[in-house]
Amino acid sequence: MTVALVGAGPGDPELITVRGLARVRACEVLVYDRLVAGELVDAAPPEALRIAREGVSQDEVNSLLVAHGRKRRVVRLKGGDPFVFGRGGEEALALAEAGVPFELVPGVSSLAAVPESVHIPITHRGVSSSVTAFASHDVEALDAAALARVPGTLVAFMGGARVERLAQRLIEHGKPSSTPAAVVSRGTTEEEQVAVARLGAIGAVARDLPTPALVVIGDVVAVRAALAVAGQAAA
Amino acid sequence: MTVALVGAGPGDPELITVRGLARVRACEVLVYDRLVAGELVDAAPPEALRIAREGVSQDEVNSLLVAHGRKRRVVRLKGGDPFVFGRGGEEALALAEAGVPFELVPGVSSLAAVPESVHIPITHRGVSSSVTAFASHDVEALDAAALARVPGTLVAFMGGARVERLAQRLIEHGKPSSTPAAVVSRGTTEEEQVAVARLGAIGAVARDLPTPALVVIGDVVAVRAALAVAGQAAA
Repeated sequence: MTVALVGAGPGDPELITVRGLARVRACEVLVYDRLVAGELVDAAPPEALRIAREGVSQDEVNSLLVAHGRKRRVVRLKGGDPFVFGRGGEEALALAEAGVPFELVPGVSSLAAVPESVHIPITHRGVSSSVTAFASHDVEALDAAALARVPGTLVAFMGGARVERLAQRLIEHGKPSSTPAAVVSRGTTEEEQVAVARLGAIGAVARDLPTPALVVIGDVVAVRAALAVAGQAAA
Repeated sequence: MTVALVGAGPGDPELITVRGLARVRACEVLVYDRLVAGELVDAAPPEALRIAREGVSQDEVNSLLVAHGRKRRVVRLKGGDPFVFGRGGEEALALAEAGVPFELVPGVSSLAAVPESVHIPITHRGVSSSVTAFASHDVEALDAAALARVPGTLVAFMGGARVERLAQRLIEHGKPSSTPAAVVSRGTTEEEQVAVARLGAIGAVARDLPTPALVVIGDVVAVRAALAVAGQAAA
């Protein structure tokens, strides 16, 4: 049989793709991440085997996918897009090595959709024509000199508690402390929260925001104020 | 009434989101980009007014959205994601300034989905933990020094004809000419074509690929070989 590696999107269950939802509805085994919306887990057939990924190591997930994928229609449902900080490549490699056919179904990544949810365009004509996205559990290991220098928007996939140190390192390497910044916690879900401040001050306001959080640094953050009014009227 | 700015996804019509398709199916006016799949244009109600964006200036599009948006349910259907090199921010600003309520419905960006379609993960554990995406009609205006230095994957939204000059400039600024590179033309559609070579040689093989094309530069391109076998078996 086959394994479909499916991106569930950034949190809101209606942001899965049409193909992704079709694969979930037709699966026999669903292996899903903790952050995937309950509505999507419920969309699998009632008789499907549901396996929560939480507490299972990456090696064990790979083995599960290979074992079930040999016999059944498996969907591996991952937050965002499987290949954007999603470790989908590792799972695909394990399947390729085992000779189990797989299919990749991309998803809406948090990268653009989470800033968009709070009216921040990650690129904007005349403001930013590039974006650098990175993920890190270790702020000290980042090449802060290169990140401070690259033009355009920065987007970091990291928890609110590490934002202060990230901002500090970027400022040490020449990023102006006056650069607009935002941290979005649980973007696109009903628990969404956003903090906005200058880079020099963002750490203090973002410290206690729950994970997962996304950090946006750059002049595009300032576009938000102009967009927020009408957007709120429609929401 | 309201205007929904909807991302159509990277080309394949089944890669629109569930919410995006629902908005298209319920619209009274559909303003759509040239690259949007015909199946999605056909998904609007038969009586809906369809307006092709081709040949219409950005200012005129903004005016159209404002005028129709005051009276009808409008969907503005854009390739990829509206805020990733999509000029969605400008359209949203025009609506905000005119006091027309709008909604943002993100889409699957080509940024990850097009490389994924040819089995290239834009991030991969142990290979790349960051990605810098940029768009340019003018390769000479790019900050090639910063782009050559930033760690991780580079993704350029640009036509095949400009790839040679881009590669040349990056190499001049220190990017190794042996860096793996790929150019994907019309990714995720039936006309998809891919060229793979070292950075120093990619320009020559990519020159005649039709637009739109996406350029991927970095060690993640080499992951493709290991993934391609099983992926082809599933396709």
